[in-house]
Amino acid sequence: MSTTSNIAVIGGGSWATAIVKMLTENLEKVHWYMRSVYAVEHLKRHEHNPNYLSDVEFNINQLQLSNDINEIVDSADVLIFAIPSAFLKSELDKLTVPLEGKTIFSAIKGIVPESSLIVGEHFNKFYNIGFENIGVITGPCHAEEVALERLSYLTIACSDEDKAKMLAGFLSSDYIKCKTSDDIVGTEYAAVLKNIYAIAAGIAHGLGYGDNFQSVLMSNAIREMKKFIKKVHKMKRNINDSAYLGDLLVTGYSVFSRNRMFGNMIGKGYTVKSAQMEMSMVAEGYYATASAYKINEERKAKTPIINAVYTILYEGKNPKKTFKKLADKLD
Amino acid sequence: MSTTSNIAVIGGGSWATAIVKMLTENLEKVHWYMRSVYAVEHLKRHEHNPNYLSDVEFNINQLQLSNDINEIVDSADVLIFAIPSAFLKSELDKLTVPLEGKTIFSAIKGIVPESSLIVGEHFNKFYNIGFENIGVITGPCHAEEVALERLSYLTIACSDEDKAKMLAGFLSSDYIKCKTSDDIVGTEYAAVLKNIYAIAAGIAHGLGYGDNFQSVLMSNAIREMKKFIKKVHKMKRNINDSAYLGDLLVTGYSVFSRNRMFGNMIGKGYTVKSAQMEMSMVAEGYYATASAYKINEERKAKTPIINAVYTILYEGKNPKKTFKKLADKLD
Repeated sequence: MSTTSNIAVIGGGSWATAIVKMLTENLEKVHWYMRSVYAVEHLKRHEHNPNYLSDVEFNINQLQLSNDINEIVDSADVLIFAIPSAFLKSELDKLTVPLEGKTIFSAIKGIVPESSLIVGEHFNKFYNIGFENIGVITGPCHAEEVALERLSYLTIACSDEDKAKMLAGFLSSDYIKCKTSDDIVGTEYAAVLKNIYAIAAGIAHGLGYGDNFQSVLMSNAIREMKKFIKKVHKMKRNINDSAYLGDLLVTGYSVFSRNRMFGNMIGKGYTVKSAQMEMSMVAEGYYATASAYKINEERKAKTPIINAVYTILYEGKNPKKTFKKLADKLD
Repeated sequence: MSTTSNIAVIGGGSWATAIVKMLTENLEKVHWYMRSVYAVEHLKRHEHNPNYLSDVEFNINQLQLSNDINEIVDSADVLIFAIPSAFLKSELDKLTVPLEGKTIFSAIKGIVPESSLIVGEHFNKFYNIGFENIGVITGPCHAEEVALERLSYLTIACSDEDKAKMLAGFLSSDYIKCKTSDDIVGTEYAAVLKNIYAIAAGIAHGLGYGDNFQSVLMSNAIREMKKFIKKVHKMKRNINDSAYLGDLLVTGYSVFSRNRMFGNMIGKGYTVKSAQMEMSMVAEGYYATASAYKINEERKAKTPIINAVYTILYEGKNPKKTFKKLADKLD
């Protein structure tokens, strides 16, 4: 990856759109794949994404847009994936051009449902991408605030420090500050686990627990996250860095978080099915809960919050009773 | 202190009222001093505090009420102080009965302005109370949620573990869970420092920073708090426990926090004087900022957030420029 690398963003949602916006502050050309023909045509004609962050205006001359993933992947050395983890496999299945030799950054905050792996591990296992060519872009960062150019901080993790620094340089601007990290496993798990804790926060809210409980829940969540990540990948990290604690807080305290909203409906008595139908989507944290629970069956970190969310979502346990028991384990 | 100890609460505000409520769940008699004659008379007649948490109904037979601090102090072995730190000295100056032999718990979250000491240190230095007879009651806990009997967690710190356990027993109930700690210095400083960080959160909000920045600010604040407290009193503690991180979060994310509100006005362009006049009170964190800053001039922990708040509040520095510089130091 050199300063002249071609960078492509894969995805048409709000986070993908925010990342393209950040990159266009620095790069002459950004390659951008989105599935929707309509969105591509709208962007070309009206210079904004019709569906997400539509106030963000692009200079169309800076974009190579296509709804052909092979065309975009072929044109770039560095690929940033920013699509829901539930759609990753079906998008990758379309590929006929090779991924070999590419550097892949995941801006996906979820577990790939088909493989139960975090995105980096999925690329490593199924596409033979070496870990030195895999990185993670993590928040705390709501895309909506990037659109408003409100000061936000990103962490770019890659075991190859030069690659992390290069991408950090491409994303940085007046309103984006980037730091780099070599903890690709920990930052990616943090981004996944925080969605489970956001579901827990939502359930608590739905059940009528207040702000005092929420702060205790988050204080326990970060301690639990530390134990979980340590079991999965032991290395020196400060769990209170922005990529871990900051990301947990921005999601756990956000009333706009889809995971929190999903949890809230569960706490209010919706079944999992009816909450998902009502939201017309599956919250990332739903899959993450099953995967984290299963991973931890072997690793055996003490994770009472993840366990509580798991038994509610997958074993149909009563949320009120489950949280009453959970509350006894928190301190 | 035995199970038959007489316990007195000193203070008539919302936190004092919440503590009396918690104690009356367990004790036959609670001794309660409040300055206002009117409030005492109202309580005796109508069985609720007219000014704070007025939905909480008391059984008047459980209360020994008085607006004479000497009468109440004299009647009890254990004193819980729950008045704003700015009024502590003037209340203590009224004392003619001795404090010797009493156990003193501070539920005050502030620095005593006249001595620039945390409450425990103030009692130790000026009233010769040994540290084994000094304790701290700390949250995360909004009094309003105690009134609603929403599940809340307290930490009771005392170097004499038996005393901590005893008080924890008196405060615990269906809706209150207590843990004990031996970190009286650290928990009290955490309760003080969090108000400074709440002012910082308010300033940021007033200046137009968003949720992404707020989460980075809190992530930096807990790391800064850890360094500060370590310099003041080094011991093994987990800064992510509820008494430290939880208390920071419940205050820093609360739109009802007076410290956050004060900071918000400063961020919006009010002068310190006009913000204080508008609020008709001085936020605890205002004094805490000066004291923490001075303490740290000797200790030299890296505290960019405290320093930024100090220069804005006490040196009249421009909030916008100061926070722009602060933002460069956060990560």
